[in-house]
This record gives sequence, C-alpha cells and structure tokens, in this order.
Amino acid sequence: MNKIRFNHLLGLEGLSSEVITEILDSAEAFLKVLSRPIPRVPSLRGVTVANLFFESSTRTRISFELAEKRLSADVVNFTASSSSMNKGETILDTARNIEAMKVDVVVIRHFAQGSPHFLADRVNAAVINAGDGSHEHPTQALLDIMTIRRKTGDLKGLKVLILGDIAHSRVARSNIYGLLTMGVNVKICGPSTLIPREIESMGIEVTHDLEEGLDWCDVVNVLRIQLERQNEGLIPSLREYQRSFGLTRNHLERVGGEKIIMHPGPMNRGVEIDSDVADGPGSVILSQVTHGVAVRMAVLYLISGREQSIE
Amino acid sequence: MNKIRFNHLLGLEGLSSEVITEILDSAEAFLKVLSRPIPRVPSLRGVTVANLFFESSTRTRISFELAEKRLSADVVNFTASSSSMNKGETILDTARNIEAMKVDVVVIRHFAQGSPHFLADRVNAAVINAGDGSHEHPTQALLDIMTIRRKTGDLKGLKVLILGDIAHSRVARSNIYGLLTMGVNVKICGPSTLIPREIESMGIEVTHDLEEGLDWCDVVNVLRIQLERQNEGLIPSLREYQRSFGLTRNHLERVGGEKIIMHPGPMNRGVEIDSDVADGPGSVILSQVTHGVAVRMAVLYLISGREQSIE
Amino acid sequence: MNKIRFNHLLGLEGLSSEVITEILDSAEAFLKVLSRPIPRVPSLRGVTVANLFFESSTRTRISFELAEKRLSADVVNFTASSSSMNKGETILDTARNIEAMKVDVVVIRHFAQGSPHFLADRVNAAVINAGDGSHEHPTQALLDIMTIRRKTGDLKGLKVLILGDIAHSRVARSNIYGLLTMGVNVKICGPSTLIPREIESMGIEVTHDLEEGLDWCDVVNVLRIQLERQNEGLIPSLREYQRSFGLTRNHLERVGGEKIIMHPGPMNRGVEIDSDVADGPGSVILSQVTHGVAVRMAVLYLISGREQSIE
Repeated sequence: MNKIRFNHLLGLEGLSSEVITEILDSAEAFLKVLSRPIPRVPSLRGVTVANLFFESSTRTRISFELAEKRLSADVVNFTASSSSMNKGETILDTARNIEAMKVDVVVIRHFAQGSPHFLADRVNAAVINAGDGSHEHPTQALLDIMTIRRKTGDLKGLKVLILGDIAHSRVARSNIYGLLTMGVNVKICGPSTLIPREIESMGIEVTHDLEEGLDWCDVVNVLRIQLERQNEGLIPSLREYQRSFGLTRNHLERVGGEKIIMHPGPMNRGVEIDSDVADGPGSVILSQVTHGVAVRMAVLYLISGREQSIE
Repeated sequence: MNKIRFNHLLGLEGLSSEVITEILDSAEAFLKVLSRPIPRVPSLRGVTVANLFFESSTRTRISFELAEKRLSADVVNFTASSSSMNKGETILDTARNIEAMKVDVVVIRHFAQGSPHFLADRVNAAVINAGDGSHEHPTQALLDIMTIRRKTGDLKGLKVLILGDIAHSRVARSNIYGLLTMGVNVKICGPSTLIPREIESMGIEVTHDLEEGLDWCDVVNVLRIQLERQNEGLIPSLREYQRSFGLTRNHLERVGGEKIIMHPGPMNRGVEIDSDVADGPGSVILSQVTHGVAVRMAVLYLISGREQSIE
Repeated sequence: MNKIRFNHLLGLEGLSSEVITEILDSAEAFLKVLSRPIPRVPSLRGVTVANLFFESSTRTRISFELAEKRLSADVVNFTASSSSMNKGETILDTARNIEAMKVDVVVIRHFAQGSPHFLADRVNAAVINAGDGSHEHPTQALLDIMTIRRKTGDLKGLKVLILGDIAHSRVARSNIYGLLTMGVNVKICGPSTLIPREIESMGIEVTHDLEEGLDWCDVVNVLRIQLERQNEGLIPSLREYQRSFGLTRNHLERVGGEKIIMHPGPMNRGVEIDSDVADGPGSVILSQVTHGVAVRMAVLYLISGREQSIE
C-alpha cells in the first residue's frame, strides 16, 4: 500500500487532492470492514487515542470512539465538564499531561478557533481537529465529500449548494476548502447577515434566492441554524428564516430534477429542513453518519503511520 | 441450545412464561460464568451496544456495561448531560444516527413512558428498555424474579408483597406483569395515594396494613420512596410514611416466620427500610445486584440472536 | 518474583520501606512496558476495576484508567455527577452494590477524609485511595518518590523541600510519610496560615523564607495553591502569595546549584510557579505524569495478588 503520510489533520485548507483522495479510498476499504460480521481490525493495536471534547457533542464523539475501537486502539475520553479545566489549567498543560501518559493521538474539539493548531505545534502526539470554533471541522467535510463521491461516482464539475449560516459554520468552511480542491463548483445560499464578506474573494458565488440555488445545483448541503442567531439579531426569527431558507418538498418540486440532500446534524426539523425532505428520496443524511465512522477510521489509520494492511 | 428469539425487550407485559424461563435459565448459566477466574465469554464479539441514558443512573448503567463487556461486546456510552439533546434534537434522530454507525443493540433509559417502544418501531437495532418513566423496567423485574426463584426453587403459588409507592414505580409494574405470568400471587401494600386505581382490575389484592401484608407473604419487595412525593402532597411526611409503611425488624418479629427481603435500590435507609432489615438475615438485596449482571447478559445474548454456546 | 502482598493502598502512613521499594521496583518494570510498541500486558485479565470519582479529576482518573487498560483489566467508571449519590444513597451502599457486581478493585477519590478506609473495612474488594479530602493521595506521593529516585539514584539523605499550602494538601501529607520512611530529609516552606501545627512534632523543619529553603534542598516539590484560600482569609491575595512563595527563575539563580523541580499539577502558572521554572532545565513535572501510569500499574498489579510475571 502506497500511503501518503501526514502528521496532523487540522483542516482541509491547503490539503492536496492526493491526500484527500487517499483518505477517501482508505475510507472505502474501512466501509467494507464495517459491514463484516465482526467489524474490527487490529490496525491500531497498541495505539492510544485521547478524545478531548471541550464542547458537548454526541455524534462526533461517538463516531470517533467507534472508529477508534474498531481499529483496536486504546481509548481514553475526556470531557470538559468532568475535567480540571475549571481548576484554571491551560489547554496546553492538559494536552502535555495527556501526552506524558504516552498518548499517541489527540482528537480535540474546542470552542476556540486554532486550538488544534496551537497543540499540534507543541506536542508530539498526532492531533486531529474534531471542530474548532467556527473555523474547521475537517472529518465532517471529508465524510460529506465521501458521501457525494459514492453517490455520483465523480466529483469534478459537480455543483454543490451550501445552504444556511455560512458565517458561523466550521462545516461550511471545511466543505468549501475540500470541495474546491476536488474540482467541485460551490455556491453559497443564505441571508446576507450569515454570509462572510471574504467568501466572494474565494471565487464562490453567492445567492440569496433559495430556488435559484436549488435550480443550479446537484447537491444541497443544508446547515444547522443555531437558535442563538435570533438573539444576536442576525435573523429576524426562526419563522422568517424558515420561510426564506428552509428546505421544503415544495421548493424541490418547483425546481424539479433529483437533488442529493445532505445535513451534518443535529437537524432542526421544520426550521432549516422539513421532515419530508430529511426523510425523503434524495436524502443521504444517514449515509453521512455511516461514512463518518469509515472516514475517521481512515484518518486515524493514516495518521498513525502504521504499516499493517487494512485486511 | 434451543433458543427462543425475541427482537426487543420493552417490558414484561405480554411476555410468555416460556420466554421468561428461557431468560432465567440463561442467566443461571451466565451466573456461573461470573464466578470464573476470568468472567468473560466471547458470545457478543463484534456486536456493538450503545447505552443511551437520558436519566441519571449508577447501578443500572454499570450493570449493563459490565454485562456487555463480559460478553465481549463493543460498548459506547451516551448520557443526556454530554449529549446534543440540549441542541433540540429528537430522540428518534439520536437513535437513527447511532444506528447508522452500525450499532446492533440500543439500551435506553428515558424519563418519557413509551420511548423504547417508539424507537423499536422505527430502528433496526434491537432495543432494551432500561426504564421508561413510571412504566416498565423489565430487567429489574427479571433479576427480582431470578432472585426469588433461586431462593425458593419454585415460583408457582408463592406470595409476594410489593410495598410502597406503586403508582410511580416502573419496578412494581414490571414485577407485577412478570410475577403473575409465572403463577406467583401478588399483593400490594401502601398508602392509597400511591396505589393506582386500575390495580384491583388486574386481580391483585391491596392492603393498607403493613403487618397484614407481611403476615400473608413469603417475599416482600420494598420500593424506594421518592422524596418528591412529599412536595406533591402524596404523603404527609417521610416520618409519617416511615411510621406506617417503613419496614422494621419490629414488624418482622411481630408477624414471625422467615421472609425474603428485597429492594431494588438505592435505599433510603431509615425511611422505607431500616438498616437492620436491609442488612439482616432474610435480605437478598446484594444478591439482586449480582443477579442483575447475569440477567442482563442473558437478555443481551438472547436478543443478539448469536448461535454460539455460552461455554 | 518475591512479591509483598497488601490488600489495600489507603495511604503511605505506616507503609514500610520494603513495600514502597517493591512498588517502585515494579513500577520500573512497567515503565519499560510503557515504552514498548504495544504497551500492554495481560497481567490483570479478568480483573474488574471500578473507578469511583466523587470529586472531579482529569489526570488522576485518566492515569488510573490507562494503567488499568494497559494491564488488560476490565474497567467501569463512575463519576459523582452521573451517579445516584444525589438520590441520597450512602457511599457504603454504592460500594457494596458495585462489589456485588463482582468488582475486584475499587479506586476511590472522595472529598471526605477517611472514606477509603471506611470502605476497606466493609467490602471485600481491594481499595485504592486516589485522594481523600486533605488527608492522603498515596499514588501521587509514590510517583513523586519514584521520580526523585530515578533522578538521583538514591533516596537516603536527600533533602526535599515541600513548598506551599501544606495544611490542605493530601499530596504533601503522603509525601511526608513516604519520604521520611525512605530516609529522606524533609523541610516545609509556606505562610504560617497554611502550615499545620502538628508538623514540627513529626520532626520536620519549617521555614517561612523561600530562599533559605531553596538553598537547603536538592529537590523542591511545589504544591498547587487553591484560589479559595484567598476567600477564606488564609492568604492576603494571590499576588502577595506569589511575591513571597511563588517559585521564579530569579530565586533559583540567587541560591544557585541544580534543583529538581516538581509539581503535582494542575499548575497555576505565574502564581505558585513561573512558566520558565515549570518548563525549565530542572523540571521533572512531565516525567512525574509518565511515572504516574507506571506506579499505578504497579499498585494495581501488586494489590491484585496475581502470580503472573510482568513479562
């Protein structure tokens, strides 16, 4: 196996299409492992992974934990609530201490943008970013891209619409970097208050008209709208938001054609997406979740530098 | 081994005596496994179990987790506090997501009655009810019945008194269903404010006189009294409750005879049960805990449909 | 292997130098295990360990958990927040219940002094004290002593200064017992409000002058200052404390010589210790963390009574 090595996975910005393709190809192999009667390989036996979650999370934490266990890694979990962070310790001291216990890989989610990069510069362990502030969430974007590639066969020239709160979304940012690198055309749709100014300088078109965006695209990736945006005055109300940017069956029928429907979860059903779309024919939302475990196995495997074959 | 198959364990209501007997017999085999130097069997290797606890719990969660590990299952834990439930996600989306990660069995405790049934209708994973509202707690009742059967040899015709807050107790409800199915005579004892009206239509006698109930029974299963009942005006005070329905050595001596004493825990010592009863000669309270792990191993094993022998 | 048996590790008070030496020697063997490609031994296969943490903790909990997993033990975790302790259950009932589930070793951290001793008298499981109130924290002291022994070769006649809040420190207390037993000279330094009266009766010298203490010692073990001490009126302010007792490069340069610098963590950088000292040449703070896993493996191994060799 001709593996490309990387030491950390901090974001998709700057990652080459070769590395992304290598990860997706490995994830395909692990997806086959997951469908075996005993979905476990010994690839990471003896490797210790620490999951440091400074923000609450269900699916990402469980997805990483399952990926680690299915690779036979040793796993320790650390969540902020039960931690000594409230004793005033710095994140660096926490990470150094965990490293001193012979931890090989640190998976970190943190509310502060750049935390994983800060750690990666200062510890020997491999660092995987599981979401830093509104900056990047690379494994989510990789699983999104894997899901699109599986559904369409080829990424080049595809049209992906990202719908919703782009400004605060690490999922959007990582998707944009990864999709552009893979030759995908990306368009953004949302209220102007939720679209960052620099987006057009990245060569990405913006629309504020949902049906125009839908008409253009092959795939629509619907982002979660945070209820806090209302209090911050960035949207008038959830009802207003829903009326202009909530994805409904009506919209899809009006533009016609088959669209692939994605959502990173957790969904606000009836707000950014209606249930009959989320559970409807074009939806690949649950496949995204399944692919998440495979993508995370691939990233952990490649980052560990282990030579064993996946078989 | 001639295994009876079932897809979910949602409650003891409607479960046949054959299925209950099969579970108890398997639990006996697993109890032997638990006394080995290495109390572990490979029966569930490759099976992934998710423990979803939306209510805080110590013993039930740890008991399930130990049962799963002793069967060599892969285990992921999810507790409400660290979850995205506070992000407004529905329980169904949470379960579907976890299932999409290739989880085979979901053990769920939830404050809302019927949650496990709701899930079982909508996901492919096997669902085990670890307590839903004040509805059912089937594995607790199974371990109670196992404990009685081990102590008495035969269940048919035995007399079991259930003492305390019947109205709010999922333990009482599951015990009543299971015991009646197994041919046990059940009597209920407690203040009228804590006994549901429909109980007599189930063919169960009620008494409000503790010593009358004690005099009648072979086994007394003492329920935990929730301190909240006081604020709700359902009992005048804990002291009043204790005076009328708290089980003391005095009561037992007055009625004479050997009674088997049970409590599902956690106990309010000095309220519903006195310490010299809880720790006294007839008490099987700690055996109940031990049998809990064996019963849960049996349920997990039978629900998984695995063909391997327990040996 | 000529193993010394002990049933519990409750504190270093009264522990003989033979037992301490046996633990340190075993820890050296496990430190070698930790540097292997697959840092895992089967020594505790089939042994179940419950970690009961009634106080929040990061490094101690993770250190024990890693030690247990690297010995191939089965591990269940229990933290106060997710427990039924808020249902009013006594610590003894919790422990008895866990024991009834066939748990062999209980690792307990509790805010109440003497809790581990109370349990050890009443359960059959082996009990390891992971910190009880301001009483003892024996595995921390053992890892401190291991770190000193590795650095200096011999303990006898060495001079160790313990700096800070001695009165409230279980780390200080366990270190004093262990170091005196091993023939080390101990001196205490801190404000008089934070030094217990009985200390001089233990044959330990006290100084309130940091540089005098530094000039005397080979090793300085800097304790964490709890921010609460300020509100309790035991120190005028953190700034005042820092000025008199915070360890800075300046101090070290003024007294000259090479000092070994220790801290149990988590550190308040800029208060009891400056960053250029914590990260400077004499610091062994991260080695302490590494040794912690090895020491805990040794304690778990010796307490389990298992006959297997470490190899």
